[in-house]
Amino acid sequence: MSSPAYAELVARLQRTHLLATVSDLLGWDEQVNLPPASAEHRARQLTLLAELGHAAGSEARLGELLGELEAGASGQTPDERAVVRQARRDYDRVTKLPADFVREKAALTSHAYHAWAAARAKSDFASYVPFLEKHLVLAKREAAYLGRSAAPYDYYIDQNDPGLTAGVIGGLFDELKRGLVPFVRAILASPVKPPAGVLRGFPVEGQRVFLREVTERLGFDYQRGRLDVALHPFCSGTAADTRMTTRFNVDEPLDALFSSIHETGHGLYEQGLSPALGGTALGMHAGMAVHESQSRLWENQVARGRAFWRNFEPRFREIFPTQTAGVTADQLYLAINAVVPTLIRVDADEVTYNLHIILRFELEKKLFAGELAVRDLPEAWRAASCELLGLEPANDAEGVLQDVHWSGGAFGYFPSYCLGNMMAAQLWYAALAALPGLEDDFARGDFSRLLGWLRTHVHAEGRRHDLLALVRKVTGEPLSPHALMRYLRERYGTLYRV
Amino acid sequence: MSSPAYAELVARLQRTHLLATVSDLLGWDEQVNLPPASAEHRARQLTLLAELGHAAGSEARLGELLGELEAGASGQTPDERAVVRQARRDYDRVTKLPADFVREKAALTSHAYHAWAAARAKSDFASYVPFLEKHLVLAKREAAYLGRSAAPYDYYIDQNDPGLTAGVIGGLFDELKRGLVPFVRAILASPVKPPAGVLRGFPVEGQRVFLREVTERLGFDYQRGRLDVALHPFCSGTAADTRMTTRFNVDEPLDALFSSIHETGHGLYEQGLSPALGGTALGMHAGMAVHESQSRLWENQVARGRAFWRNFEPRFREIFPTQTAGVTADQLYLAINAVVPTLIRVDADEVTYNLHIILRFELEKKLFAGELAVRDLPEAWRAASCELLGLEPANDAEGVLQDVHWSGGAFGYFPSYCLGNMMAAQLWYAALAALPGLEDDFARGDFSRLLGWLRTHVHAEGRRHDLLALVRKVTGEPLSPHALMRYLRERYGTLYRV
Repeated sequence: MSSPAYAELVARLQRTHLLATVSDLLGWDEQVNLPPASAEHRARQLTLLAELGHAAGSEARLGELLGELEAGASGQTPDERAVVRQARRDYDRVTKLPADFVREKAALTSHAYHAWAAARAKSDFASYVPFLEKHLVLAKREAAYLGRSAAPYDYYIDQNDPGLTAGVIGGLFDELKRGLVPFVRAILASPVKPPAGVLRGFPVEGQRVFLREVTERLGFDYQRGRLDVALHPFCSGTAADTRMTTRFNVDEPLDALFSSIHETGHGLYEQGLSPALGGTALGMHAGMAVHESQSRLWENQVARGRAFWRNFEPRFREIFPTQTAGVTADQLYLAINAVVPTLIRVDADEVTYNLHIILRFELEKKLFAGELAVRDLPEAWRAASCELLGLEPANDAEGVLQDVHWSGGAFGYFPSYCLGNMMAAQLWYAALAALPGLEDDFARGDFSRLLGWLRTHVHAEGRRHDLLALVRKVTGEPLSPHALMRYLRERYGTLYRV
Repeated sequence: MSSPAYAELVARLQRTHLLATVSDLLGWDEQVNLPPASAEHRARQLTLLAELGHAAGSEARLGELLGELEAGASGQTPDERAVVRQARRDYDRVTKLPADFVREKAALTSHAYHAWAAARAKSDFASYVPFLEKHLVLAKREAAYLGRSAAPYDYYIDQNDPGLTAGVIGGLFDELKRGLVPFVRAILASPVKPPAGVLRGFPVEGQRVFLREVTERLGFDYQRGRLDVALHPFCSGTAADTRMTTRFNVDEPLDALFSSIHETGHGLYEQGLSPALGGTALGMHAGMAVHESQSRLWENQVARGRAFWRNFEPRFREIFPTQTAGVTADQLYLAINAVVPTLIRVDADEVTYNLHIILRFELEKKLFAGELAVRDLPEAWRAASCELLGLEPANDAEGVLQDVHWSGGAFGYFPSYCLGNMMAAQLWYAALAALPGLEDDFARGDFSRLLGWLRTHVHAEGRRHDLLALVRKVTGEPLSPHALMRYLRERYGTLYRV
């Protein structure tokens, strides 16, 4: 029987969460529906909701309840303690940052975004330097407010993936790099080359039909979710109303398909969380890396695999008979699994993608450690790009200025993408071991056993465990790059004969 | 120079209004996008926003400001006094209703809605009687809380159209009835008969293209508005982001067209209000009847007229060449202006529509006066239907149970529809007099002079004046049914040769 204080805490968390889902919906609508001249109005609506959300999340009563519950922790269940722990994290973050600081950071973020966009357009890093320098100063101040002045970068990493540190990530990434860099070189030296430009002229309507069939078959519940068109693919909302977006290009049919399957992975995770527990650690995703493990698992391990295509290729050819007439099954599979290093992260294949992340992590770490000055970033980026990707950016627009994240002060976020890849591969082998004949299911178009397994072992856990504990609990192994390297070698080593 | 109290009042009104626009957007999304199983979540979001809106609209500080400003009214401009007056109305309505009462009415509304839907499905009025009786009891209690216990029906009329009373409406409707009933009989006796079923098989895509061209040409600004598909046509939002809906039926192309032009009239009004003054009387529509005058003027006086079709008919035939091949211009015009009495209000033409409203008004008036018991409504409805429409409902589903309004306690709302028709006709003749050659503009596809005139004389006025004062100010005449009868006689008398 929960205490009255616990019940009140949960009710307050749910209310604040419900208000946040309203902001989410307005954010989705902004990307999908908003008339062009209505942007300022939407900004005002979102600012008001942010103020109301801040007020709800920082009420003194919440602090009293947390104090009371922390003092009585011995009488609580582990679930209750997890809820209190997460609520304390959120409460501290909302209340320990002075209002002036929050305003200063919001203003900087807005100015830095425009400065970044202008700098990228002209490939002019120098004009962006003062904004990024200021963001680093504020980032360290923010960490100090939260009592983490000794390790500000760790504070940011912990924001995205509770419990993780730059030290742990550095060890994992170093090991991955040692395996991955020579592996990519070997693929590039292979006589097997992915075909370019063989998939052209795929009508949007057919892509839409195929996408809908695929995502529905994977398990996305369209009774409580949607897929719409926006400039950038994303997934927002919660289990009660999950909204994904995609974009179509008639000459890039795999782009909408795989980005939508990626978002479906995020969507399936959200739909697997308990709506009744929304706003508490029990109904909350476990962090950015775990979220990314779900999107990557469905996008890569599942949907780029032979078994998936054994089921879906006939339908793909049925919907696009003329477009696929001259494309053999092997060509199609190689196009799906093309490894082509690129300077741009968001265009990268799943093999080289990890190198883009390692590059950014190493630079962020040095920035925070004071080992690299903001003004020296372009040169450091070029050197790392040559070392890791074997490609040198011709200008900063395709180098250090390519990503928006830092302009929003979003540090410690990039590593989650690669950690998610590691976890996805570990989950993949754990699922294969737990579910014999799993890929035979896929070849029949049945993905329900995998989804059920993920529901039980990952989704239903909510945020009870951090990334490291969750991986260990589900797979019996510590988080590591071994499974990812094994998976990449198995899939791409065979395909490229290396 | 406005006083600090006035500036603070305006800022608070704008904030409350901004929050209301968030609820509006969620309401729009509910009708247009919401996944079927997400309805409960949406209800929770809307309930929370209603609570926050109630809190913002009933803050004690608002009451202090109003008291201060009312005491210093002599030093204020007429605009400022109009803002304070409207703010007082809204504040009293929010603060004088006890929370228990609001909850009781909300619960009844929810239950009564389901009772109404079930009763209509089975045409079983008896099961609905207790809910409607309870609504009447609460309606009188609500009027009493607002100090209007002597005339509760007038209280409800005043909610929709400030300043109006049942006495005034009764006089206007009696006069209209005396002209309209014999006029309808004459039309029905005419040898001219509108063609039935000549417009069939109009593809949705073509309808969509035509609709977009028409509504854009009328002046709807798609840079700050949208038109989407929903089960029922409606217009929501504000000048900053105006959202209209329609629905398509391949065999009823005029349905989507005219309902969308109707919503465009509402949308043009909203887009003509000042976004910067939103939430104050200066940026607020002047009431339901004035709103309806705008939708009806564009739908009927403008878009059912010869001049409109002189411009748009060629394009209509160009988009639908095979569908219109066998339809003459006269047949098309007669189909657009078909007068066919029906039992169902929402299916009625613009001539007989007014009789549906008079019927409801007379019954509502008797219900509030205690001259008619709820259980006797079906019989009274049947008698009035025979008298006014010459049609007897075969059952209550096509009689007293057809409309949802009363199940929500929305009394005093129906009259606005007919009052809007009266005002539309008065505005029409005033515009024709003020803008010589106006219909020649229409024949060239130019509607800008009419829109400009409405912007100046109606939209820019906001809620500075009530319905009666506004009509007198713009047309120089009191509100009356004369212009409506004149317009109906001119258009339909000619067409049906009566």
